[in-house]
Amino acid sequence: MNGYRDLRVALLGCGSVGAQVARLILDHGDELAARIGANLQLTGIAVRDIDAPRDVELPRELFTTDAEQLVLGADVVVELMGGIEPARSLILRAIEGGADVVTANKALIAAHGPELSEAAEQVGAQLSYEAAVAGAIPIIRPLRESLAGDHVTRVLGIVNGSTNYILDRMDRFGDSAEDAMRVAAELGYLEADPTLDVEGYDAAQKATILARIAFHTEVPVDSVYREGITRVTLAQVEAAKHAGYVIKLLAIAERLTAADGTEGVSARVYPALISRDHPLAAVHGGKNAVFVEAEAAGELMFYGAGAGGVETASAVLGDLVSAARRHVVGGPGIPGSAHADLPILPIGEVTTSYQIMLEVRDEAGVLATIAGILAQHGVSASSVEQSVPEGSRGTASLVIGTHRAREADLAATVEELRDSEAVTAVTSVLRLEGNS
Amino acid sequence: MNGYRDLRVALLGCGSVGAQVARLILDHGDELAARIGANLQLTGIAVRDIDAPRDVELPRELFTTDAEQLVLGADVVVELMGGIEPARSLILRAIEGGADVVTANKALIAAHGPELSEAAEQVGAQLSYEAAVAGAIPIIRPLRESLAGDHVTRVLGIVNGSTNYILDRMDRFGDSAEDAMRVAAELGYLEADPTLDVEGYDAAQKATILARIAFHTEVPVDSVYREGITRVTLAQVEAAKHAGYVIKLLAIAERLTAADGTEGVSARVYPALISRDHPLAAVHGGKNAVFVEAEAAGELMFYGAGAGGVETASAVLGDLVSAARRHVVGGPGIPGSAHADLPILPIGEVTTSYQIMLEVRDEAGVLATIAGILAQHGVSASSVEQSVPEGSRGTASLVIGTHRAREADLAATVEELRDSEAVTAVTSVLRLEGNS
Repeated sequence: MNGYRDLRVALLGCGSVGAQVARLILDHGDELAARIGANLQLTGIAVRDIDAPRDVELPRELFTTDAEQLVLGADVVVELMGGIEPARSLILRAIEGGADVVTANKALIAAHGPELSEAAEQVGAQLSYEAAVAGAIPIIRPLRESLAGDHVTRVLGIVNGSTNYILDRMDRFGDSAEDAMRVAAELGYLEADPTLDVEGYDAAQKATILARIAFHTEVPVDSVYREGITRVTLAQVEAAKHAGYVIKLLAIAERLTAADGTEGVSARVYPALISRDHPLAAVHGGKNAVFVEAEAAGELMFYGAGAGGVETASAVLGDLVSAARRHVVGGPGIPGSAHADLPILPIGEVTTSYQIMLEVRDEAGVLATIAGILAQHGVSASSVEQSVPEGSRGTASLVIGTHRAREADLAATVEELRDSEAVTAVTSVLRLEGNS
Repeated sequence: MNGYRDLRVALLGCGSVGAQVARLILDHGDELAARIGANLQLTGIAVRDIDAPRDVELPRELFTTDAEQLVLGADVVVELMGGIEPARSLILRAIEGGADVVTANKALIAAHGPELSEAAEQVGAQLSYEAAVAGAIPIIRPLRESLAGDHVTRVLGIVNGSTNYILDRMDRFGDSAEDAMRVAAELGYLEADPTLDVEGYDAAQKATILARIAFHTEVPVDSVYREGITRVTLAQVEAAKHAGYVIKLLAIAERLTAADGTEGVSARVYPALISRDHPLAAVHGGKNAVFVEAEAAGELMFYGAGAGGVETASAVLGDLVSAARRHVVGGPGIPGSAHADLPILPIGEVTTSYQIMLEVRDEAGVLATIAGILAQHGVSASSVEQSVPEGSRGTASLVIGTHRAREADLAATVEELRDSEAVTAVTSVLRLEGNS
């Protein structure tokens, strides 16, 4: 009863991404409504089997097997079924009905993106597919909008998490290709048919989409040159390492001049060497990253989770909020900026961990004194390292790492250490960030 | 004469960013028009001194000293003067006149962002400021739009290039703080008054903006806890390195629960330790990066150039194209996706460099034969490394790095090497990517 109008959202598919999208719409309804200016009313979830097990418990009455009926009358259709048909026909039907469409379906967008975009353009509907490339990472929107006034010259993407995981294991742990693949399969990183990943088909679909958006050009997926990782050997990985390189499976979209002077576009996928100094070299495990080179902006990189139900759902929700806001304001889809109005907390309320370096008297009982000071303020040490520097006269150096604690307690601890007779100097106090 | 309507763009300021924005609008007019569906007509550039030297040569008749007059009747006003006044008054006047506004003015947005946003919202105008934080890096739009359906929990930003440059020199080259600062000043990384950078004021302004957008909460810049880098010593940097950390000046915006259970927001700036495994640790030199943690999306990072005239101009242009498209379609500001229609070039036209590993006969003249094969195809070697593995019987290993060459020539070279009597095996052929 917030006075907002309802927007009807139809969800097609309830796999690992779909279930999380449904959950987020249901759990965060009020907050989403405040950001959009309308209520997202989930009108139904089309599935093949209503009784199939789901990742998330959802109200049974939402499920339907009649996707065609569900699409009728929706304001926004979220397609997460995957595959070409019936996804394509349902999306076309949704667009004809005037709905905006959000999809994470990379195979469909790679094969039929231009057809679907054109259909949407003709009726003034919006088709968005941020989640189709690199999962949670915002890359479609930055390429399309943030770089709309620039000239992109090259895109290098690590866009397949499974193959990055395999190559990363070979590089970091010295696994053979077979061992790394077995571990990847055990961890569920590989599809039942791993060919899509390891032969580069999945990356080629993403290369098509990236090339299309970066260069405003239709790039059919079968025009993408493709080599997978199946012929990469541990010997190659180790030789690369020795020479200061790392082997990554790259999806590349590039503006080129051909030998005859023709300006054109190349889209390709292959395992390549990149320098260990390159930001892409630090993309480990199943993570994805897209490195973009543009004439004015220079080098940019977008990094994050390339897969995962809840991660990908974040990108879907971003597109959904953007589409929904269009219905409300007919405007730019930018949520308001100050409606949460949380209190600003002072530094003393921050919890973090400290690294404290001290010079202390090299005497019995000093460590106990210092431990007592920490304990008194509820601060616990995660590590203590003591050393007696050469030439020190009766003093020792102490490096104390603490567990997370409230800043006020940490500051009071340092204050008391400074005043302690056991301590001759506090030489460094630094906070540690970036851990969880 | 492309049949498009004109959109009047008024540019305020012509420093290093403004001059590049003007150049890009003038040089890329046709392409921008195709992306927007309207012509960007640069109606004038307001400056204090028409005869001042500029980074770019621009038509003299564009310059005016009457900024107030220029703003009247503009469809989009691009404010790149910097400082609070007269920028603030001119932006308010532009908004009252119904113009959309694009600005890169971090000081103004940090101090008066909510006031300006509210003024824009009241008349349905758009205020955008992608370039105000982290230069060319798209971070405002991803936070506002791509993550609009998610809950951001923490933002860690390296958002000041000068201080990152100084700390990076101390870490990588062992410079003292004084030496690193001197080099930074010599390279023009530091302002005439370096206090804004090294005392963390600049980073604090960006922390304010990031916290505001991430948490939909007004965060006054004077509520940001702030420590600069002036007390960071080389001894601390080296001790950090020894312990597996690196010291970075971080702008942090975080959702927190206070001791009394209050949910709130903390915004703060200080030099902190982060693990060398953390993606932020790989942000070297003057680069910027913003690491975002969100409940659904997990960890994301946005990396690139945080300053520079032409780099920052890219972000300004992105906002300008987005604002301009709103005038054309009243829609989502998404440029069309396939209007360039460049040809797709085959893999043979790609230029890249190769690393070729061979087993060759360990005989006189073999190197000359191989060099001849490369030369015949117009491929030149950048490095050749020969080794005779233990136990090899009459063979040697050769690792050849090539300069950039056309793929067709490289492939033909490898083919001929395979067939050569001098070569007993081609053991690895890999492309090298990511270099320029």
